[in-house]
Amino acid sequence: MSTDAATTDTLDPTDLRSRIDTALAAFLRRGRTTVPAQRAPADELSTALADFVLAPGKRLRPLLCVLGWHAGGGTGDDERLLRLAASLELFHAFALIHDDIMDASDTRRGRPTAHRAFAARHPRRRDADAFGTSAAILLGDLALVRADEMLHAARLSPRESEVVLPLVDAMRDELVRGQYLDVLATGAASGDVERALTANRLKTAQYTVERPFQLGAALAGADAALLRACSAFALPLGEAYQLRDDLLGVFGDPGVTGKSADEDLRSGKATVLMALAVRRADRAEREQLARLVGDPLLDAEGAARVRRILERTGARDTVEHMIAERYDTALAALDRAELAPRVSAVLRRIATSAVRRTA
Amino acid sequence: MSTDAATTDTLDPTDLRSRIDTALAAFLRRGRTTVPAQRAPADELSTALADFVLAPGKRLRPLLCVLGWHAGGGTGDDERLLRLAASLELFHAFALIHDDIMDASDTRRGRPTAHRAFAARHPRRRDADAFGTSAAILLGDLALVRADEMLHAARLSPRESEVVLPLVDAMRDELVRGQYLDVLATGAASGDVERALTANRLKTAQYTVERPFQLGAALAGADAALLRACSAFALPLGEAYQLRDDLLGVFGDPGVTGKSADEDLRSGKATVLMALAVRRADRAEREQLARLVGDPLLDAEGAARVRRILERTGARDTVEHMIAERYDTALAALDRAELAPRVSAVLRRIATSAVRRTA
Repeated sequence: MSTDAATTDTLDPTDLRSRIDTALAAFLRRGRTTVPAQRAPADELSTALADFVLAPGKRLRPLLCVLGWHAGGGTGDDERLLRLAASLELFHAFALIHDDIMDASDTRRGRPTAHRAFAARHPRRRDADAFGTSAAILLGDLALVRADEMLHAARLSPRESEVVLPLVDAMRDELVRGQYLDVLATGAASGDVERALTANRLKTAQYTVERPFQLGAALAGADAALLRACSAFALPLGEAYQLRDDLLGVFGDPGVTGKSADEDLRSGKATVLMALAVRRADRAEREQLARLVGDPLLDAEGAARVRRILERTGARDTVEHMIAERYDTALAALDRAELAPRVSAVLRRIATSAVRRTA
Repeated sequence: MSTDAATTDTLDPTDLRSRIDTALAAFLRRGRTTVPAQRAPADELSTALADFVLAPGKRLRPLLCVLGWHAGGGTGDDERLLRLAASLELFHAFALIHDDIMDASDTRRGRPTAHRAFAARHPRRRDADAFGTSAAILLGDLALVRADEMLHAARLSPRESEVVLPLVDAMRDELVRGQYLDVLATGAASGDVERALTANRLKTAQYTVERPFQLGAALAGADAALLRACSAFALPLGEAYQLRDDLLGVFGDPGVTGKSADEDLRSGKATVLMALAVRRADRAEREQLARLVGDPLLDAEGAARVRRILERTGARDTVEHMIAERYDTALAALDRAELAPRVSAVLRRIATSAVRRTA
């Protein structure tokens, strides 16, 4: 392998992803240095975490962090950067594992969710389901503990800590608050578009896109103006990303998305898409939505009826339009930011695939 | 109030507790500086966290941290120390809130547990119980996020970070692993004394006593020998503390402990006490334990029968004996450590009340 700077500093997303994965694998598979050898049963948790985190994924948050670093003028293969970036993936594992418990989801990325997998691994317990939930709560907790450990291992300087840690704190706070808004709103069709947009902003626009991007830029020493430019690009892109997610959750191909197309409807997920439909529905449609959305026993026919209402009211079209609008705003902000062309080029590609993706 | 150093540097536990509480309250009630104003619904979570954390408590972990600081030669009212110490209470709130979900406990300190309180606050939801669990998972998550934020606010120097953060990482890891061992073993009477002792060591001896004490000492610049002396005192004390807890969980006065005296038996908590009884039980007793322990519908008569077996087999006496033995070992280690007399005196009082307490 070449040690040429141009090679190791490449901005090819596939290559960046593989460097992030290498850092994650090295961290998760090494023996712990600060803790004495562990007994076998407890290691079930570490193994489950490594399996979960190292499964193939988009690595969107670490990628954006690395790109933020380059946007902020950083260069080279910085060990601190890779650790900071990879720690975002561990934090995200925490968020996903707990989210799957809260949503009572059966599958994630086409595999059983953590709580289902733990329950299945201990079938002889009389409390197998409760055990699965408890074990998954702890698995999520461990992911967060490990995310911190990896962040500590980055050994940021006081100057770096001063700019990076407040962004880390804000990002985590936004995720938890966004999730809580989601949980509050889940379970019944609601016409509260504003609340759905707020949850969208907290847990996706800020948590998923803006903060990871800013974190990398801040580590590279970006000034306030550049951090604002990061936001101007990241926030509309993040909103578009979540709106696409909401559409895929209802209209996506389960064979591609890896999750049931009826689950969001059964759980009564409170999306902008649904809120728009409730607001525009006529009386008969509104009664149908109230009855069908959030019904855990919703069947294929009921789900199809909800989809027809989402289309008849124009909610689906409006969300597509909102995505296109936010995508344009993000790209215009990217142009104004005048980043190095090789950085802009990758960000543009990521923006396009985030908005046009099918999974 | 006097600003005399001798006053502010007092080692009176009541005074130390009140300083820790002041730091916690200031942190939890201030407006967030890094995050824009939050919408009302999400603030329900912050309010619930402040209520939970600021309710009266023993503050054992922060106290031990402050005492470790003095044992390590630290002096004065150090802001970094108070933040580090108080962050342990936030971390512990996370542990308790998630523990109560996993144990399906109804009360904590005589009040409804977080998941029950959230469910009760939203009675009109058709999924009130599931909502309560989800909200409590997020409340615990928020407590951990805030614990980190408070740790970040301590602004440790690189030298301090280097000694403190590995202990923080180890402490958190031990808690999660100890909890997992507990969850694995809960639900049925087992004679695995060794496993119960390991869980006890991880989640109480290390997480609750050794690490908080070492953290304060390390912040004050303690060398490796002093950190080992901390462990020699803290580990047996922590084991004794948990063994007392196990006895109180079954033989304690619910009016004093604030929790049902049958709950540990109903959930099938895997304690050293129970493991000893299973090992020594005759065939008839063993069958009774297998049937009664972990039965969610266990009645008062059944619980009384289990208590008689715990006494008949001598398990209760043995655990009392183990507590006394560990208490003596801890105090002998404390003498050998030759700490400043005012520090030793408080540690001795804490050790005594940890072992002789009724709640």
